[in-house]
Amino acid sequence: MTQKLFKNVLIIGVGLIGSSIARALRNYKLTDQIVGCDIATQVKDKCKELKIIEQFIDSIENFNDHFDLIIMCSPLSTYRHIFKSLNRQVKQKCIVTDVGSTKLSAINDFKSTCNNNFISYIPGHPIAGLEKSGPEYGFKELFHNRFCILTPLDYDDQALESIKKMWEVFGMNVEYMKAAHHDRVLAMTSHVPQLIAYSIVSTATELEKHMRDEVIKYSAAGFRDFTRLAGSDPIMWRDVYSLNKDAVLEMLGRFTEDLTSLQKAIRNNDTKLLEKIFKSTKEIRKLIESAGQAGSFDPTEIDKKI
Amino acid sequence: MTQKLFKNVLIIGVGLIGSSIARALRNYKLTDQIVGCDIATQVKDKCKELKIIEQFIDSIENFNDHFDLIIMCSPLSTYRHIFKSLNRQVKQKCIVTDVGSTKLSAINDFKSTCNNNFISYIPGHPIAGLEKSGPEYGFKELFHNRFCILTPLDYDDQALESIKKMWEVFGMNVEYMKAAHHDRVLAMTSHVPQLIAYSIVSTATELEKHMRDEVIKYSAAGFRDFTRLAGSDPIMWRDVYSLNKDAVLEMLGRFTEDLTSLQKAIRNNDTKLLEKIFKSTKEIRKLIESAGQAGSFDPTEIDKKI
Repeated sequence: MTQKLFKNVLIIGVGLIGSSIARALRNYKLTDQIVGCDIATQVKDKCKELKIIEQFIDSIENFNDHFDLIIMCSPLSTYRHIFKSLNRQVKQKCIVTDVGSTKLSAINDFKSTCNNNFISYIPGHPIAGLEKSGPEYGFKELFHNRFCILTPLDYDDQALESIKKMWEVFGMNVEYMKAAHHDRVLAMTSHVPQLIAYSIVSTATELEKHMRDEVIKYSAAGFRDFTRLAGSDPIMWRDVYSLNKDAVLEMLGRFTEDLTSLQKAIRNNDTKLLEKIFKSTKEIRKLIESAGQAGSFDPTEIDKKI
Repeated sequence: MTQKLFKNVLIIGVGLIGSSIARALRNYKLTDQIVGCDIATQVKDKCKELKIIEQFIDSIENFNDHFDLIIMCSPLSTYRHIFKSLNRQVKQKCIVTDVGSTKLSAINDFKSTCNNNFISYIPGHPIAGLEKSGPEYGFKELFHNRFCILTPLDYDDQALESIKKMWEVFGMNVEYMKAAHHDRVLAMTSHVPQLIAYSIVSTATELEKHMRDEVIKYSAAGFRDFTRLAGSDPIMWRDVYSLNKDAVLEMLGRFTEDLTSLQKAIRNNDTKLLEKIFKSTKEIRKLIESAGQAGSFDPTEIDKKI
């Protein structure tokens, strides 16, 4: 049996991630009570209907309960506002953590708004998700066997231990990293791939209708691999690009340089260069497969539908 | 029971696709005999070992058998040479078809080398594949419920009926298209996505080692979606870009324009434009899902390995 880590947890933003955390907290009995906060009425209704969270506070502007853990699962652009409110209202010891995809900006938001000594802020990023959004898509195993990166401000912290423990109980492998480094790694593994996926799907959207219909019809030829990512939550991603701008622009610059080289090789019929580059990329795929990070793709979904 | 369509079939190039065709031909009993031709000794040995094809001709330069169907499954860069040999050696009625990803170049190669009236050439492209290459990865269901595009030179042709029938027996949905149109559609659905996948994986390959290891470790955050494609056969793809150059450069131009717009929006903090573009791409994903072309992705492979 796992140890009860918290008494009363507030989850701010109860979408895919927030609702999965609520499910996991309850499943592993890590807290006595879970309270939600969400600006969207339909999210609150859905949570109550599915019995994910039954108690909500109306607003983070004004609440009377004491929470020993507050988990921010709302878009990154809400962080400043939330930290400001918490700074004003927290009157007892409280751990605050988050799940956002950029960490420098989160830390800056915290430092520039919060000087409340009751608050221990542990910046976090569980690398788990789906291309769906909303509490109805969450599930308690979402975090199982995935990585969670924490970028603590202070390593010698009891609060850090509790947060690490929570993610580990959820099945995650917890790693520590400097915030700036996290942001560069994620720019390459997540933010730039996502931007490219948005971009190519957007290119297809703008094709003449006749052509676009055929692109959809024959998308299994490769295009569909990109569309899975492009189905993700627009607000969340808008905030990521705005808040991890420097690292994204750096990695994007590297990518466009490489793409330009390939384009030039095609234009100049430089088949030797093309072959050399294509051979080199096979290695990375093999490394990802042997690291157990490849996932598995079933191309036969069509069988179920026709 | 299906009708026997052929007597003696020659498959040139017995990799993933060629070996899958051999398996399907045998499974559906469409021919009395299957003969292979491949320049790689290890491919021939593997085919014999796995009893996929047991009889091989040494070279397409010189063979005495009569084949009523010849299927070209070798890289596009071999087509000219093969057509020249067939032009010289075919002495009886023979259907020739292929499985190449570019069709204008295939037709040009045929027209510029072949004037043998015994030969009916049906250009074809079964849109089915895997990121693996080699006869050991082939399987008879590879074509099941996928599309096959034929770009016939002559629609009023008995040979066309036989080839259409063959792919339909294999479970494919056969469509006719003009070669030039095929090449543009495939540039967008397949050749450009593949190039982008190669490019981003190549960018990651060139990162400093420390960073690259972390990109692999955290690839599940999005990057891995691109690496599946980048595991494909380098020679096949080198040929595609060299032979579908115009359509690829056109679609790539459109893509880089869109990516540049996104890059500029990030640099200028134009969050409204980002949000608008990200919202529009969700639609295409929905259309692909409702067309039954999305496939299904299982992110939990890691569970099996750890």
